Amino acid sequence: MGSLDSNTPTDHAAGQFSPLDPEEFRRQAHQMVDFIADYYRKIETYPVLSQVQPAYLHSQLPQTPPYRPEPMDAIMKDVQSQIIPGITHWLSPNFFGFFPATVSTAAFLGEMLCTCFNSVGFNWLASPASTELEMVVMDWLAHALKLPSSFMFSMVTSLSGTGGGVIQNTTSEAVLVTLVAARDRALGVHGIDFLSKLAVYASDQTHSTFSKACRIAGINPANIRSLPTSVEGGFALSPAVLRSAVEEDLAAGLIPLYLCTTVGTTSTTAVDPIGALADVARDYGVWVHVDCAYGGSACICPEFRHHLNGVDLVDSVSLSPHKWLLSYLDCCCLWVKQPGSLVRALSTNPEYLKNKPSESSSVVDFKDWQVGTGRRFKSLRLWLVMRSYGLANLQSHIRSDVRMARMFERLVRSDPRFEVTVPRLFSLVCFRFVPKRARGPGQIERANRRLLDWVNGTGRAFMTHTVAGGKFMLRFAVGATLTEERHVLAAWKLIKEGADGLERS
Amino acid sequence: MGSLDSNTPTDHAAGQFSPLDPEEFRRQAHQMVDFIADYYRKIETYPVLSQVQPAYLHSQLPQTPPYRPEPMDAIMKDVQSQIIPGITHWLSPNFFGFFPATVSTAAFLGEMLCTCFNSVGFNWLASPASTELEMVVMDWLAHALKLPSSFMFSMVTSLSGTGGGVIQNTTSEAVLVTLVAARDRALGVHGIDFLSKLAVYASDQTHSTFSKACRIAGINPANIRSLPTSVEGGFALSPAVLRSAVEEDLAAGLIPLYLCTTVGTTSTTAVDPIGALADVARDYGVWVHVDCAYGGSACICPEFRHHLNGVDLVDSVSLSPHKWLLSYLDCCCLWVKQPGSLVRALSTNPEYLKNKPSESSSVVDFKDWQVGTGRRFKSLRLWLVMRSYGLANLQSHIRSDVRMARMFERLVRSDPRFEVTVPRLFSLVCFRFVPKRARGPGQIERANRRLLDWVNGTGRAFMTHTVAGGKFMLRFAVGATLTEERHVLAAWKLIKEGADGLERS
Repeated sequence: MGSLDSNTPTDHAAGQFSPLDPEEFRRQAHQMVDFIADYYRKIETYPVLSQVQPAYLHSQLPQTPPYRPEPMDAIMKDVQSQIIPGITHWLSPNFFGFFPATVSTAAFLGEMLCTCFNSVGFNWLASPASTELEMVVMDWLAHALKLPSSFMFSMVTSLSGTGGGVIQNTTSEAVLVTLVAARDRALGVHGIDFLSKLAVYASDQTHSTFSKACRIAGINPANIRSLPTSVEGGFALSPAVLRSAVEEDLAAGLIPLYLCTTVGTTSTTAVDPIGALADVARDYGVWVHVDCAYGGSACICPEFRHHLNGVDLVDSVSLSPHKWLLSYLDCCCLWVKQPGSLVRALSTNPEYLKNKPSESSSVVDFKDWQVGTGRRFKSLRLWLVMRSYGLANLQSHIRSDVRMARMFERLVRSDPRFEVTVPRLFSLVCFRFVPKRARGPGQIERANRRLLDWVNGTGRAFMTHTVAGGKFMLRFAVGATLTEERHVLAAWKLIKEGADGLERS
Repeated sequence: MGSLDSNTPTDHAAGQFSPLDPEEFRRQAHQMVDFIADYYRKIETYPVLSQVQPAYLHSQLPQTPPYRPEPMDAIMKDVQSQIIPGITHWLSPNFFGFFPATVSTAAFLGEMLCTCFNSVGFNWLASPASTELEMVVMDWLAHALKLPSSFMFSMVTSLSGTGGGVIQNTTSEAVLVTLVAARDRALGVHGIDFLSKLAVYASDQTHSTFSKACRIAGINPANIRSLPTSVEGGFALSPAVLRSAVEEDLAAGLIPLYLCTTVGTTSTTAVDPIGALADVARDYGVWVHVDCAYGGSACICPEFRHHLNGVDLVDSVSLSPHKWLLSYLDCCCLWVKQPGSLVRALSTNPEYLKNKPSESSSVVDFKDWQVGTGRRFKSLRLWLVMRSYGLANLQSHIRSDVRMARMFERLVRSDPRFEVTVPRLFSLVCFRFVPKRARGPGQIERANRRLLDWVNGTGRAFMTHTVAGGKFMLRFAVGATLTEERHVLAAWKLIKEGADGLERS
């Protein structure tokens, strides 16, 4: 912000608008740090699930923006009185809904740094450190997961890799960009007119974002296969079911394109047998993606790594450290074996972004690996998490959550009014209340819905639900960063209290 | 992180892994605030364009992640010695490249709050404040831009609006989701087999992300029209050119689908005549989008608002406050007249996300307005910016940048060795060096490339280039948050120094 009347440095005391005066920044940011630390300290005092009604905020705020500036103190009072009541506190230790979105001091610091630099790393030149640190941490995380070197960068000859990784915002985008890469590879052979003949595959347990990505990419909705799974098969996709679906499509003149497998489905954390499915898919030239958004993080522990067996046979893998690796939203890591297929589908080369390093092909331009052009310096978060905690602590964090989930599972099994509905694999327990006097699935479902509403309505814990194999069940996902054993025990006590109430009513 | 041996609160002093201990958070975050304030204070001491060579970082960092934790002090030393040298300092007051990515203390605080809560606002229930504040600030910004109420929410009957706005990550996604909405609306009429017959339109000045979004959405690359503009026409798209292209496509049996207009193109900040173009497009049922990522921000000032004339006739508008409204990446505001068309194309409804407010249709679930599922609480940033500064300061910020650009333009015009190549509309000046002894366009281009390399190589200022109307030119984009008149003057002096050197050599 400049002065027209002077060529000397702006005198910030003169009342000019200086939106980034360093000392004002320092003063206000220190205040915000204390606000946040206090929020974390007292987070248990808030109801986990926000108790507001739709449109609660509308009546509290003016309909037009202020013309004159308002003091930060007044705004922060409104954060406390108007915003916080409307927040569902994902960081509460009593949050057991969906999957947890985990965080850490190191990731917060990394996010502050990312914001601080605000570098827009669309290509290498625009901020070399942004691109290069991302390449390093993607290789680091690949090492931690024991991914084959075919998913790693090979910047020097001593590295044998030929692939690489990139940070996307969400799994949706990771699926979309790989799908588009696979699609364009296939259309390059068959021609654009075959777009409506492409067929894609996933189990009926796959995240809904898969079919959404397919629709965005122009895949014919009639050719999006949602293959059946069963409770007996652990809700995993069967290679035989895949093969017969592919064969049927081939017979109908379709072109099998893409298979999305999952390690840790959203409903019940089911694990598809990656290797066996990839064996089938390879027979037909189908691109295989592994969505291990949640379950993949556990695979940094040797005792869980077998869930990724066969990953050497697939084309791409995505994992969201914002779910279970303490990294805050939004951070989805995508590795591909053939970055060239992404770049061919997604590259742009406008004059205003041309530069010598890009033209020399000596660098990676991540804009060609994603939907958008601009991109933040997100690798700082992962770098700080991995360095500040080390693999040792990250493993112990995963194990601690699993231990707490196992404890919760034992508690459920110890009460004859409850049943574990799906064998636990990670830190999610699927269970339900089976009241003695309930007659048939309808009554059981209603009882569980009432129990869920009651628990969530107390504000003392928050769970969600799912339906799998036709059965309504409750999901108890352990792993919010601040959760300790005592919170799990208290939640179980609360659930039993709710069940007692329902039995009495 | 729990303790298995105790049901009492974890004793953080006991050496357990507590990745979000509030007091440790407070201590480290305060240190980070000081690091960042110091960075902003001394930002001018760094070369603007990073001077590192490709792969500079690879040799400095280990190839695998550490097993044991490392102290934050050691990591921050590496940030200083390894990361900062690789950063192109977008926040430097001497950054005049691309478009500036502007920031502010208020937005930084908003981003800290967003990170703090880490609420995942995919639907209303998951964090009501996240959805509702976004609705409020999108309406606020729409008011500031004098968008018609058809782009605003109508949560109560006193509001007459029927549309609404949503924060996307980037323009690319804003274009992609509206394109998919338009595509599915058209295919709903014509059938999926007509996908390869859809045709889309934009000028040859439109951001490259438009054709990329089209390719992602499965539009036939042969039907993506890049309509010619001219220097005489100010690089604006002519309604007559549009009409004849549409007529030609119709005659060839194609279906005109989508027009992307721009207010402030990336090359030269050209402005398409929105109203006249929309008049043509409406004759053919074509969806009209306005990409005013950069130029739209200026339209909060009455003297620039005319660039949006005719916006009442279009279907969607996107503007990126991270460019010129002090908001940090990544924040692209998208308004649509018919949110239902987005929702029909992008909605998902898996069991594990079902909830009463969503089913009652009394709320907005923003996951159905975007590519991904998860989403951050980004509206906090915009809310803090608008409240903390008020429209008055935001307008004066825009005007100050434009004044400085006008000053730079005058300086260029005052030196006969230089020429302004495109009339300045906002805060970007396109110009070039025309050495007396240069013979023909090739020599002029080479001289300007050398001048650009020399200026950027000094590290004292950073500019970029473009080619428009076949002419190579330099882009001097004023508006980095910390830029004052003295920086513009110093940059001009530097450019002249470079020209002097070239003339002597």
